[in-house]
Amino acid sequence: MADDVRRVAAIGAGVIGAGWVARFLLDGIDVDVHDPSPGAAAAVDHALANAERAWRKLTLAPLPERGRLRFHDTVAAAVEGAQYVQESAPERLDFKRRLLGEILAAAPAGTPVGSSTSGFTPSALRDGLGAGASRVFVAHPFNPVYLLPLVEVVGGEGADDAALARAEALFARVGMKPLRIAREIDAHVADRLLEAVWREALWLVKDGIATTEEIDDSIRFGFGLRWAQMGLFETYRIAGGAAGMRHFLAQFGPALKWPWTKLTDVPDLDDALVERIAAQSDAQANGRSIAELEAKRDDNLVGILLALKANDWGAGATLRERDAALFGRVHARAAAAASSGSGPMASVTCRAREDWADYNGHMTESRYLQVFGDATDAFLRAIGMDSAYLASGRSVFTVETHLRHLDETKVGETLRVTTRLLARDSKRAHVAHEMRAGDDARLVATAEQMLLHVDAKAGKASAFDAALVAGLDAIARTQAGLPAPDWVGRKVGGPKA
Amino acid sequence: MADDVRRVAAIGAGVIGAGWVARFLLDGIDVDVHDPSPGAAAAVDHALANAERAWRKLTLAPLPERGRLRFHDTVAAAVEGAQYVQESAPERLDFKRRLLGEILAAAPAGTPVGSSTSGFTPSALRDGLGAGASRVFVAHPFNPVYLLPLVEVVGGEGADDAALARAEALFARVGMKPLRIAREIDAHVADRLLEAVWREALWLVKDGIATTEEIDDSIRFGFGLRWAQMGLFETYRIAGGAAGMRHFLAQFGPALKWPWTKLTDVPDLDDALVERIAAQSDAQANGRSIAELEAKRDDNLVGILLALKANDWGAGATLRERDAALFGRVHARAAAAASSGSGPMASVTCRAREDWADYNGHMTESRYLQVFGDATDAFLRAIGMDSAYLASGRSVFTVETHLRHLDETKVGETLRVTTRLLARDSKRAHVAHEMRAGDDARLVATAEQMLLHVDAKAGKASAFDAALVAGLDAIARTQAGLPAPDWVGRKVGGPKA
Repeated sequence: MADDVRRVAAIGAGVIGAGWVARFLLDGIDVDVHDPSPGAAAAVDHALANAERAWRKLTLAPLPERGRLRFHDTVAAAVEGAQYVQESAPERLDFKRRLLGEILAAAPAGTPVGSSTSGFTPSALRDGLGAGASRVFVAHPFNPVYLLPLVEVVGGEGADDAALARAEALFARVGMKPLRIAREIDAHVADRLLEAVWREALWLVKDGIATTEEIDDSIRFGFGLRWAQMGLFETYRIAGGAAGMRHFLAQFGPALKWPWTKLTDVPDLDDALVERIAAQSDAQANGRSIAELEAKRDDNLVGILLALKANDWGAGATLRERDAALFGRVHARAAAAASSGSGPMASVTCRAREDWADYNGHMTESRYLQVFGDATDAFLRAIGMDSAYLASGRSVFTVETHLRHLDETKVGETLRVTTRLLARDSKRAHVAHEMRAGDDARLVATAEQMLLHVDAKAGKASAFDAALVAGLDAIARTQAGLPAPDWVGRKVGGPKA
Repeated sequence: MADDVRRVAAIGAGVIGAGWVARFLLDGIDVDVHDPSPGAAAAVDHALANAERAWRKLTLAPLPERGRLRFHDTVAAAVEGAQYVQESAPERLDFKRRLLGEILAAAPAGTPVGSSTSGFTPSALRDGLGAGASRVFVAHPFNPVYLLPLVEVVGGEGADDAALARAEALFARVGMKPLRIAREIDAHVADRLLEAVWREALWLVKDGIATTEEIDDSIRFGFGLRWAQMGLFETYRIAGGAAGMRHFLAQFGPALKWPWTKLTDVPDLDDALVERIAAQSDAQANGRSIAELEAKRDDNLVGILLALKANDWGAGATLRERDAALFGRVHARAAAAASSGSGPMASVTCRAREDWADYNGHMTESRYLQVFGDATDAFLRAIGMDSAYLASGRSVFTVETHLRHLDETKVGETLRVTTRLLARDSKRAHVAHEMRAGDDARLVATAEQMLLHVDAKAGKASAFDAALVAGLDAIARTQAGLPAPDWVGRKVGGPKA
């Protein structure tokens, strides 16, 4: 079904409904909306803007042309001709049942109808709607719907399995992860877990153990990071070590007997339950050893921490401070060494990161230019180009670069770049960088660059201001008398230097 | 204290203790370990290898020289001269108390002693150990300790606050996030939340609602992604919309009355508790609007999803499939267009991502080379270089690149690269790329590259094999008769083409 769906209906466009609408529209599917509340159109606009902003970052592929969005005054008008219907009305059972009845009466025969309900079972939703209601099921997404992939799909007793399968194919097409829940139960699966945490957290606040911020921090600096990539059981499987899940259950099972939560109703962890969990966990691991899972977990955590560092947020802010402290130690040593001397400027010291490797296991070519770009930035800071200067609308652009790759760089190696000012005029600076790698400080790459000073507001080249000229001349004096590197002035494919 | 700590002791080196040891050693701190179990040294080796592998990716800074690691037969020998002691023994109260007594008797006076206990209160640990025990407290970390920043710090009644503060400074120094818990309680804060989830999850498995894998998926494809960056309350604050936390509580509070979990003991959500939560949530938001929090949340989720995509895992695997599908649509259109024509090869179509922007809001220079590198890869695939060829130990390296930047590229713009084969000999190919941006397809950059075919095993240049030669010649035929671009053969700073 999925590929030929061109038109769906959304009944209800609050935060959740609008998220669904954005998912569908961004895949190029037309959406017909019914929501009588005055804020519905604004909610859809808002979700759509957020979704487009996020997906511009999530993929390099050009996004499909947006589907056509239309609002309707009645349920019947919205679902006419719809190939799928998503109901996201307020969480009141009688109200949802009435809407579902209207949908079933007006939508084309056989069209699957998913409900975003977080609490009700599909049987409760279908109750009293007759035999045609078998194509009504639970399709419970998570906020923000345009970003989080999960959708819990619950059919329950008597569901039309073919309708569910067609809907699941549609969810996968719009980038979601449909998770079929075998047995219906109030609040399905994820919200039961969330509700347990919510209740416990309310006790902690009420009893004055921790504030809302402290509780949030206890999550996002710790187990929340784990749960973005592995869940509860797989995480514990690794913690159990090579002995696996049975070992873990033996070690931590007894805590179930302790009054550790305010919510003390607990299942008996008898042999049958231990065996079931261990067997399911084995199946889930799908042959991966603990060591393999551990490496995957760590790689995922590293990636998540780096992503959060880029946003200077949560555990990423902690990492940023750590990073600054580690670099601080390096810079203190470098400053001590540099204050004595003259010659080429020591512009960058860093390491070739593992995720910079290409398929040959060497540093990818664009990373060389990234490091050389950092060297240029260090050079510009050294001549006095600071954030106030940039804020004034002036800047320096690279107009030309000549790179030579002379040797391979292995990941993990320390890289040191030195920078020379070869020449300057009123608007241009001609610089040369040399990159050395490893303990043997072998020359791995060179870059020759022409930098142009620009007035970004005027949109054209302009003269360096006096402060930068002074900075350039100061650098030139420390490098006076050095012969020009013998490799500058080359053309691609020219004779060997 | 933190900066002058050069020596700590670790009593107990299982999974948790070994993680602590790795954190300290990687910061250059000497660690003295006591753990009588035969596997302790191996556990430390393992954690240290994992930690070093992870931190090589987490920071570009050269790591400090590792501290000195020494194992001791007795607690007394290990803690002698220690400036901090971390106890990570098995979770048995009598056993921990006996060890803590030995630590207090032998460690220097005033040395803080943190316990990794996940369950016991500091008062329970100190019970019967005398007045000197006030420097014993809970320092509860999360596995893997060398990666997750959180450490819950609980002093309880009668704790030596100065000792705790010194320990917290040390934790921050080694990259952790100490979270002081105001009131002691069994299992502190995070493990109370975890225990609530664990108990609910056991019911779900026991009742046959979901398997361990399904429960894990319900976490890591949904709310687990949220919790890596914001916790429970901040997430719900956003969900409540502009009306904030009070609105959310009004909307979802009633669910507390429903039997949604097996664990139904719930606090009364009376006015006082609503007011307390709302006020704490306001304080936590620290003036940030819902829109600001929403944008931050989305940026974090985007970063996390991209990080997981790089590892092809969980929600990242879903995103990878989505990405491939979106590119598939583009490629289908491109293939249809290309099958008709001759001329320069259309090697890359992509978009300038928002996180590619420099401080001027334009695409960073190294990203140009990244896209040109993708164009070279596409060119090499087109001449027949596939993974089997690479697996045979032969490859193509870029030895020289000349870049020109002709115009600015704004984030979000579509980029299209065309590629020309200018010349080849038995080992080298001379190529020229042109990058056009935006709807007006203006020329923003060019790259001229010399590619060298190498036998990586032999470590030297070698001739293209016959299949690649045929591929090169086929490309050359489709481009026969095209004049050479007028911009090739330039030197940096040479006359304008």
